[in-house]
Parts: sequence; structure tokens; C-alpha cells
Amino acid sequence: MKDLSKMMTLADVSSQKPAYLATIFAQGNGHFGMRASAPTDAESGGTIVNGFYESSPIQYGEKAFGYAENNQTAVLLPDLRRMSIRNAEEQPFLAEAPSSLKFDLASGELRGVWPLRDPSGSRLELTVVSVLGQTLDQFALITYQLRSVDYRGLLTVSNHLTMPVFGAATDDPRQPRPIHTLQVSATQKDAVSETMRIKAPTSGQQITLKLACQDGLDRVQPIVPEQVLTRAVIASVSRINRQASRKRVTPDALQADAKQFWTDFWAKADVQIEGAPALNRALHFNLFQLVSSAGRGGLTNVAAKGVSGVGYEGHYFWDTEMYMLPFYTYATPDIAKALLTYRYHVLPQAKKQARIVGVKDGALFSWRTINGEEASAYFPASTAQFHIDADIAYAVDRYVQVTGDETFLHACGLEIIAETAKFWLHFGAWSPVDGKQRFCFFDVTGPDEYSAMVNNNYYTNRMAKHNLSLAVDWGRRFPEEAQQFGLDDATLTAMAKAAAAVELPFDAQLGINAQDDEAFKKPIWPFADTPKDKYPLLLHYHPLTLYRYQVNKQADTLLADYLFDDVPAAQLRREYAYYEKITTHDSSLSRSIFSALAARMGDEKRAYDYFMDTVRMDLIDLQGNATDGLHVANLGGSWLSVVTGFAGVRRRSGQLVIENHLPKAWRKLVINLQYQGRHLRLTLTHNKTVVDLVEGTPLTVRVDGQERPLKN
Amino acid sequence: MKDLSKMMTLADVSSQKPAYLATIFAQGNGHFGMRASAPTDAESGGTIVNGFYESSPIQYGEKAFGYAENNQTAVLLPDLRRMSIRNAEEQPFLAEAPSSLKFDLASGELRGVWPLRDPSGSRLELTVVSVLGQTLDQFALITYQLRSVDYRGLLTVSNHLTMPVFGAATDDPRQPRPIHTLQVSATQKDAVSETMRIKAPTSGQQITLKLACQDGLDRVQPIVPEQVLTRAVIASVSRINRQASRKRVTPDALQADAKQFWTDFWAKADVQIEGAPALNRALHFNLFQLVSSAGRGGLTNVAAKGVSGVGYEGHYFWDTEMYMLPFYTYATPDIAKALLTYRYHVLPQAKKQARIVGVKDGALFSWRTINGEEASAYFPASTAQFHIDADIAYAVDRYVQVTGDETFLHACGLEIIAETAKFWLHFGAWSPVDGKQRFCFFDVTGPDEYSAMVNNNYYTNRMAKHNLSLAVDWGRRFPEEAQQFGLDDATLTAMAKAAAAVELPFDAQLGINAQDDEAFKKPIWPFADTPKDKYPLLLHYHPLTLYRYQVNKQADTLLADYLFDDVPAAQLRREYAYYEKITTHDSSLSRSIFSALAARMGDEKRAYDYFMDTVRMDLIDLQGNATDGLHVANLGGSWLSVVTGFAGVRRRSGQLVIENHLPKAWRKLVINLQYQGRHLRLTLTHNKTVVDLVEGTPLTVRVDGQERPLKN
Repeated sequence: MKDLSKMMTLADVSSQKPAYLATIFAQGNGHFGMRASAPTDAESGGTIVNGFYESSPIQYGEKAFGYAENNQTAVLLPDLRRMSIRNAEEQPFLAEAPSSLKFDLASGELRGVWPLRDPSGSRLELTVVSVLGQTLDQFALITYQLRSVDYRGLLTVSNHLTMPVFGAATDDPRQPRPIHTLQVSATQKDAVSETMRIKAPTSGQQITLKLACQDGLDRVQPIVPEQVLTRAVIASVSRINRQASRKRVTPDALQADAKQFWTDFWAKADVQIEGAPALNRALHFNLFQLVSSAGRGGLTNVAAKGVSGVGYEGHYFWDTEMYMLPFYTYATPDIAKALLTYRYHVLPQAKKQARIVGVKDGALFSWRTINGEEASAYFPASTAQFHIDADIAYAVDRYVQVTGDETFLHACGLEIIAETAKFWLHFGAWSPVDGKQRFCFFDVTGPDEYSAMVNNNYYTNRMAKHNLSLAVDWGRRFPEEAQQFGLDDATLTAMAKAAAAVELPFDAQLGINAQDDEAFKKPIWPFADTPKDKYPLLLHYHPLTLYRYQVNKQADTLLADYLFDDVPAAQLRREYAYYEKITTHDSSLSRSIFSALAARMGDEKRAYDYFMDTVRMDLIDLQGNATDGLHVANLGGSWLSVVTGFAGVRRRSGQLVIENHLPKAWRKLVINLQYQGRHLRLTLTHNKTVVDLVEGTPLTVRVDGQERPLKN
Repeated sequence: MKDLSKMMTLADVSSQKPAYLATIFAQGNGHFGMRASAPTDAESGGTIVNGFYESSPIQYGEKAFGYAENNQTAVLLPDLRRMSIRNAEEQPFLAEAPSSLKFDLASGELRGVWPLRDPSGSRLELTVVSVLGQTLDQFALITYQLRSVDYRGLLTVSNHLTMPVFGAATDDPRQPRPIHTLQVSATQKDAVSETMRIKAPTSGQQITLKLACQDGLDRVQPIVPEQVLTRAVIASVSRINRQASRKRVTPDALQADAKQFWTDFWAKADVQIEGAPALNRALHFNLFQLVSSAGRGGLTNVAAKGVSGVGYEGHYFWDTEMYMLPFYTYATPDIAKALLTYRYHVLPQAKKQARIVGVKDGALFSWRTINGEEASAYFPASTAQFHIDADIAYAVDRYVQVTGDETFLHACGLEIIAETAKFWLHFGAWSPVDGKQRFCFFDVTGPDEYSAMVNNNYYTNRMAKHNLSLAVDWGRRFPEEAQQFGLDDATLTAMAKAAAAVELPFDAQLGINAQDDEAFKKPIWPFADTPKDKYPLLLHYHPLTLYRYQVNKQADTLLADYLFDDVPAAQLRREYAYYEKITTHDSSLSRSIFSALAARMGDEKRAYDYFMDTVRMDLIDLQGNATDGLHVANLGGSWLSVVTGFAGVRRRSGQLVIENHLPKAWRKLVINLQYQGRHLRLTLTHNKTVVDLVEGTPLTVRVDGQERPLKN
């Protein structure tokens, strides 16, 4: 009996366009992803390998000192599912819209059924069942069942590796860049297998893909109506710059591996919304795709589109730390640790980047990158988002606190916190504000990319203050270790002093935190005069237009409010109302925060409305560009809305806090969490908040304002 | 008897490098320029045609809405002076360093003498005398005298047109961009003449060059020591997209034309510094090159390097209006008018540009351009310098007031003033400052390019206020005309209200005008820790480093103080001292303003020191890049230092003011000025300021604080 809450079908999505379906039903295992195209579709499919990129010099119309030097461009690789099917005259059978797509999130198995036609109208039906290895993550199993509906004659079936054709270059920064330097060679080919090496000569990376089919990669045989041909292909994708695995896997082993992995995952991290089956399924889809997207080996991270597409060039952003890591930290701590380990590995590049922007100590993580070097060509909206440093430090601390993994703290975490804190200490400047010396950050860009290079962005400053405090707290706890990373006593004292005095702009008249020193001086964007088809604004207005108005692409100051939970209720209400009015949500990172914050404020309508858009963003193609890949940060955002919003989960003074904000529309909300080695299960109904300690040692949590001791 | 104050020689320059000399001794006539290379030097020479450019798409690493689309790149054209000289074995004679270069600024004639050697050491001496037509501005005359020192044998001499080889692409924004699309074809070739058509297919422009030599372009003849061969070449350069002139000119006619032009110019506009011959000559060089650089037909302007090189891609900047036009206006009003007429012709492009940055009415002139469209690829330091609009309006008003040319006002000027004022009215925003509604300009960049996208840049705001006031003043004077350009009564009232309320940031504690709302909050650049070889800073620091400090590339607030003469003396002293400390003068536009302002303030030492660097900037290669071309704005700046600084010339309440600040080192300063159809001659000595009305109707001027009626 299948769990329908874990069964995605065509009924769950808003469009039947092949490239859109290829994204939504894409399968991944963190190492690679396989878009879910019809095997006869040469355009929608392809394989994405996390971290595989080609370099090319960034072209600037006008370049200046310290600009990012090289593009890092993720490359779409041959579609492993691709199969050509030809009739006796060598004419192709081509797929029509799928009659069925079933994605079993409980086992990771995708089953698709496509009607096929040849030019004379003869019909076949193709069923493809695919599954990706999860611990056996270099492998995929693809089985094909080809049934003749009314065709009688010779049928030729071939599986081969073919490089996808690149689209033309576009000006949309979210679109992949065409690249032309790849070197592709067949290294081995026989009747039952084929191996292709793809080399990116400028980045120096290479990958090997392999197809193996015991029935022969090319097969010719007669078929009659109702007859079914079956074949199974095992595909493999090597790790970057390594030889293809010599391990042999069987179809059964691969299926069992996937099944076991997903069963374990759901047991530990399932979230069930009772009373809203479609939303429940959408949320499960999101969590499934989050896990499918994340690099697990410590050398890769999560691309903006995961492994479902090459939009945003396969780059890693702050999205990981602020929108996805909460989920990984509470659901799959091993993945969380791997992602933060990646940041640890790119610390040398981050130190270099700090020197490039003229800061003499510490590290500055790159805004968009695969290899750790800055790859953004427009620094005012990228490198100037210095807050990424504090975002990563925040995520390290959260990981250590929530998992209790002090091994990671000593191996990697403390060094990350120390290097980022040193950055802030040397980047900031003491400056008088209303007669008092305050620690200020000039010419920074906050999360809201409709403003750039402002002074004392509230979010940036609040995060930097936290980053400095973390260094002081952890540094004082482990003074000898801290000293190795330059956190001697004098430095810690300077950091404590700076942290205490970080300028946090506040508008006394409005009674709210101000996005930056001068944000409120600017006129409010003329929303009334802006037609609907002019959104997202960035595609229709010059940055110099956007920058001179009060208009937000996404939650900025409110994101700080959400993270720190330190704004008095009345002020928070004013703040929410003010910023909501000027926010376009043109970024997919916006709505989840508006939802979670509204839930905690008891504004159920807003919380629910924003959640509806968040949880189904890609399923209804809300942003209009899901063909390029999933909005993975928003997938994480939907978990934030449910768990940290409706269930009010957060940590306060080192204690886990749960607050029941269950929406009226739902009957029950069940959440599984991993917490400091324990497995907790929260069950929220309208009258009750139950917290079960499924596994682990006793603990006291705070539930709806009351201390609640837990034991099993 | 030659006027030695108008005779530039090798003794006047700091370097003997061929490419440097080719710039300094370049000859121009506004239409085209000829670099002064040795005729056998294939690398340093070339022809520059004002306004001739090729287009190519600007490459952006990351592009957004409204970015400039196309590069406009001035093209270095074949060296008209080029001559190959070969011995009997067809081996080349090559020039060594010139033994003499004499540039007669009184007649426009350049005479150079180069020793030549062939590979076996045989010697010739080549004398080249060149002159450019001035009213006959499509022609140049180049005569060669080739004397054998010790060579005996056959000599082959050839003059032909050859396209220069482009250098490699560099990241220095001041360097020319290599272009590869030009189509070059010989359209006619015979024994005595050769014509070449050069087409820039993307911009659609074309140019025809022609060489004619009655002795034959190729000539072979025997020569013995002390024998002299002579030949004369007449070169012509067609106007852009026009046929080559069919007019025939003789060498004599060309020489006479040049002689007459320069004689007339010096009679009207000479400035003589007595007691400092080298400076006097340097100043004459500057004025000569200014006149040689400026387009005179109303369809071109003055490139940053004039016609002496293709640095900055041959683009026109605000340099014209703010640094050169004062000179042209007072010295060569016809040229001033032509340059402003160019702006009038590109008003349609400027209106389009205003729409691109989201301003619904008015026009925004492009920051760097040839054809009127924005060609800058880094908007924060270019398009965001909105002040160019007010700079142009200021120059229009100054031109009309100083020349009395109301015809131009009605034909072009009023429309320019109206369109720029409308831009400010719709670009600005009412915003409360200290409880009062002020008219503010957000996210603008002032002249100082070491800050970007600030709020209420003092210079920008002061200029905008003036631009709005000009529209009100002229609009009320000519209401019917003004209405045609959208200056109806309501608009004029709104402009007057806005002008009166323009925010002008002032720091009460420092008692000085503030560069922008938050400039003084930032820390001061760590000058003590900055080694000398890190200047200019822009080549060694990331913009994000420069932007977060108080550090100026050039005069910014002080430029406004200089232009408006409206800051009380004590405040001005504080302001000068403050800004001087944070200014690097990394821009060639800086020192002249510091000099002129210091002179007016009575700070002779500063005035003189800055003037010394200004007046000789290219002659001592102060900026280190004179090989790319002259710093034409600074040439104009040196006139500003002398005339508006040491002689304190400006207009106040519609009256011409002269203030004697003659430096001690000088005996006398004589300045010829054109003023409202009159010719004035100022003679400043240490005890006296004489103003002669050389020609024209009586007038009262204000001299050293006293009214002085003039009549002839």
C-alpha cells in the first residue's frame, strides 16, 4: 500500500510542458541529478553533476581592480535516460505528453508512461522506471518497458550518451551561460557498454559517464501489438576528477539502497500536515528534493537549483546557510555537517577575497561560487553582500548547538567563526552616531538587492554583531584553540566592544528598525503606477531606478527580526506592516520568512497565504522559471514556514522552544526532529501540543510558554 | 623672428620616447589629428578622426535592464606621415631619436629632424615639416627632406596608407579597446595618389583617406652624401560618411590657411606670463592643443584625448563643459557654440536615456559617448553622474551670458536648459530633513569617483539647483518659447519651489559643506599606510575598498564652491583644508580647481604649486599615460588656473569681475578675452590691474573690488 502523501503525480503540477516536468520530477542524490524527460526528448533532459563546472574569463565592459576573474559554469551533461526508438524505415518514434508520472518519494522511484508515435501514426507505449543510488551515489538504474499498441514490424532501440545542445546566450542572469570549450571523448564502447569522458579544460575538471545494458545498447527486433520489450540500463557518473567506480551494482542492490535511504530519512524527518493532503504532498516533495540536492561529501554544497537544472550556473549562495541548513540541521545532521565542511574547505579562497576588498585580516566568503572564488560580475549586488560571512557563522553555531557536534566545532567551526569575526572587526569602523561612537559598516548591500551599497544595513549589522559575539563566546570558552586562529585576548576584547556598539539603525518616528541609515529618506516606489507585467522589477527597471526608491525584493530587516526574535511585539507588528507594503517578493527567498514571522505573530491569514505560495512555488511555477530548475532555497523556506512558523520551533537561551500556531485549516501537524542526538516528534492539534521523545536522553523543552520535561 | 614663447622644442618635454613625443607634438584641427611620429616608426603614429568610431556590443559578466548596449570605439587610422626608406638591398632605414622637434604654435608648423640608419650603419637625415589645414580642415601638408650623410647608392622611398596594428586588450579603462570589424579597401591607386576607404560596418560610418605626391608615391633614385631629396605629400581626410573633398589645394594655400588661423587665434586669445618663460610656453602649448582638439562643425565634440590619441575610446565627457568650455567661451566663441550645438543634436538620445533610468520627463545626457548614446559599462561611476545634465546647462547659460549670443539661446540653449531642468524635477524627491521638506537626489555619483551612489551629493545638488533656477529665469523671460519645451507656468512654479528647497548637506560641527549626506561618517582613508606606488588608487584597490572611506579622486564639493563663489571666506578656508587632506588628485581634473580656488583665497603657494603640475601635466607626463593622448580637460584647467584663478576672472550678478592675484614669481600677466562681442585685454602687474577695451562698445567691469568703466 503506497503512502499517497509521498506520491507525486501529474495532478500535483500546474503545467505539462516537457522542460517543466523534467525539473519537477528530476531525481538527485546530491552528487548528480537526472532531469525527468521523455527518453525520446532531445531537449528537456540532461544530467547535472554537483560541483562540475567549466571556467572562462568574465568579460567586463569596464573592469577595475579586484573584480572576479572567472566564470564558473555548471555544465549540462548527457541525458542518461535518453533512448532512440525507430521503426523499420529508421523513422523515430517520438513521445507525446506523458500519460502518467508517478514519483514515489517513499522509495525514490520515478515511473513515467509516454505514448509514442512514428511519422505514419503507429503507436507504442513506453514505461520508464528510474531510481538513483543514494549511498551508491554514482549509479542510476533505468528500466524501460516498450509495449506496441498497434505497430507491427522491426523496432530499433538504442541507448547512447549525447552531449546536450546549448541554448543561446541570454541577458537573464538566472539563465545558464553557453560554454564552448568542453572536450568530449568516447573512451570505451562495445555492444553492451559505452563510456564518455567530458573534460572542462579551463577548470581542469573531468567526469566520466557510463551506460551499461546487458541486452545490448543497440537492439533490433520485430514486435507485434501488445508485445512488450524490456531493457534495463545501469548508468554511472564518476566523481569529479576521479575514475569511474569499478564497483559492480545490480538493479536489486540499487533499488534496495534507495529504498533504505528514503525510509530512514522519512522515519527521522517526516512532517505530516493532516487535513490538507495536497499541501502535505507538496511539503514532502520539497523535503525530498532538498535531500536530493545537497552535496554530502564535504567538497560540494547545494546549488541554487540543486541538481535539477543548471540555472544560476550551478552556484552556491547564502541560500544554503539561511534557507536550507535549518532543515538539514534538524533533519539530516550529516548533510548539514557536510555542507559546512565545504565552507571550511574554501576558507583559503575566502581569506584571499578579504584581502581583495581591502580587509587586512579574516576571511570573506564569496557571494556566488563553486570553487570558493568569487564568480559574480556585478559586485554591488554580490561581493558587497558581506553578510554572507555572518550567515555562515550563524549556521555553524546553530549546527553545533542543535546537533551537539562539538567535534565539528573543533575541527572546522571555530576557525570559520574566528575568520569571519576578524573580517568584521577590520571591515567595520568606529563612527559617531548622535554623539556616541558606534561600530559601523559602510557601503554594504543587504539581502534586499533592490538597494545597494548603503551604510549600516540593519540586517548586515545585526548579523555582524552576532558573528562578533559568537567569536567572543566560543573564543572565551576555548581560549587556547581560539588563539591559534588569531583570537587572542586583545582581539576578543576588541570584538566584544565592537559587538556591543554595532550601529542598529532605528527610526524613532516610525518606531521601527530602519533598513539602513537613509532608507526611509527615499520615496516609496510608485506601486500604484506599476503594471503587473512589470514584475519582477529587476527585468523592467534600471538598477538606478530601483535603488532610489524604497522597494524591497525580499525580506531584509524582517529576516533579522525572524532570526533573532528580539523585537518587541508591537514594534514587530509595525515593522512587518511597513516592510510588507514595500516588498515585491521578486526573490523566491521572501515569502517563507513573511509566512513564518506572521505565524509567530499570530497573523494566521498572512502566514497561511504566504505559506501557500511558498510550499507550492515550483508546483504552480509561481516564479515562471521552474524549467531552469527548482528554487531549492524556497523548498527549505517551506520547511521554515511549517516548523519555525506554525510550530514556532526555535532555540532561545539554549533551550528548544515550541509554540503551537496550527492553522485552522489543518487538523493536525506532526513534525519529526533530530535534536542533540535525540529524535523528537511534535504533534500539534488545535488544543494540544504533544512532544514525544522518540529516542534519546531526557530533556526539558519549552512548549507554549511552559517548561516541559521529556523522557521516553 | 620667431616668438619663442610659441616655439615648443624637445627641451620642453620630459621624455624622448617615440609614443610620448607622438602625442605631445600631435597636430590637430578639430576634425582630425596626426600623431607626430618618425615616418619610419610603424607603432607610434596614426591619424585620429574626431567622431569616427566602430560599435560593438558591450560584454557584461552580468547584465541588467537598461545597461548601455554598445561600445563606441574611436579607431586609430593610418599614419599619414608614414614613409618607408630602403637602401639598394631593400633594407630599411630606421629613425633614431629625433635630433630636433620644433613646433611653431604661431603658425601651426611642426618641423622634426631624425637621424636614420640602415642595418649596415649607413646614415641619412630626414627633416619633416608638417602643417594641418585649419579652415581647409580636410588637408595636411607633409614635406620631407632626405639628406644623405654617408650613404651612396640607390634609395627607394615610398609613402602609403597602412592600417595600424592594434595592441592587445587591457583592463585599464583608459586604454583603447582593440576592434576587429573594420573593412579597409583601396578604392584608387596610381603612381601619384592612393585612396583608402575605411568602413566601420557596425556603426555604419566610413572615412576616406588620400595621399597625393606629385613626385610619385614610390620613387627610386641614386643618392650620394650631402645630396638632398625633397618630396611633398598632400594628405586628405574626408568627413565622416562623406566623399573626400574634390577641392584641390596647393602647399602654399595650406600653409597660408594655417598661418592665418593661428595668427587670428593668438591675436584674440593670447595669454602671456612674463617672468616665467617655460610656463608661458607650456600654457601656449595647452591653448594651442585645446583649439586643435575641438570639433568645430556642431556634430562632434572634444574627446578626452582630443585628436592626439584614442585613449578613453575617443569619448566625450563632462570635461568639455566644465574644464574646456570656459576657455572656448572667452577665447573662441565659435568653437564654444559648435560644442554646445553638438549637445543640442544629441537631445533625442538624452531623452531616451532619461526614460531608461526611469525619469518620466526631460533628458539625461550620456556620461561617455560619441553618438549621444551611453557607452559606459559601469553605471555607478558613469550614468549615475547625473550632474552632467546640470554641467551642460551651466555651460549653455555661461556661453549665452559671456558671448551675448541670444540666437543660440533661442535655437538650442533654451531647449537644453528646459530638458535638463525637467529631468531634475522628476528625478528628485521631496523628503524631510530635520523636520523640513527638502528636495533631494538619491543614489547619485558626484565628480569624485572614489564614492558612488550616495544621497544628496553636494556638487550634484548645487548644480541641479542652478539648473532648475536657470529654467525658471529663462523660462519666465521667454514664456511662450518655454511653453513649447514643457515649461508651462505650473512647471516653472514647481521648479522654483524645488530649486529653493534643494538639500545642500552641511556639517555643523565641521562648519563645512558635506560631500554627501553620510560622507563624514566614513573613516578617512589610511593615507599613512598607503605606499606611493599604490597611486592612482583605482588601479590598486577594489571599488568596495575606496567607497567605504573618505577619499577623493578629485575636487568635488570644492568644484561647486569654485563655480558658485557663494561660500563665506572662513568656511571656504575650512572646506579647502578638509577636502585637500582627503584628495589624491588621481584625476587630471583635480589640480586646476585646487589652484584657481587657492589663488582666489589668496593662498599663493598652493595656487602656484597646483598650477605648476597643471600647466605642465603632459609635458612632464605627471599622470604617466600621456602616450595614450593629451589630458585635454587639464589643458583647459590650466587656463582656468591662470584666468579665473590668478586673474580672478568670473561673472557676478551679470558683471565681469577681475581680481589681481598675480603670483610673486611673475612680472606681468596679459590676458586677451572675448566678451559679449568685445575684445578685452587684462594686464596684471603687482601694483596694477589694467583692463583695455581693445575693440567693442563701452562696458563697466569690476576690478579689484572697484567699478571700472571701459571705453576705447
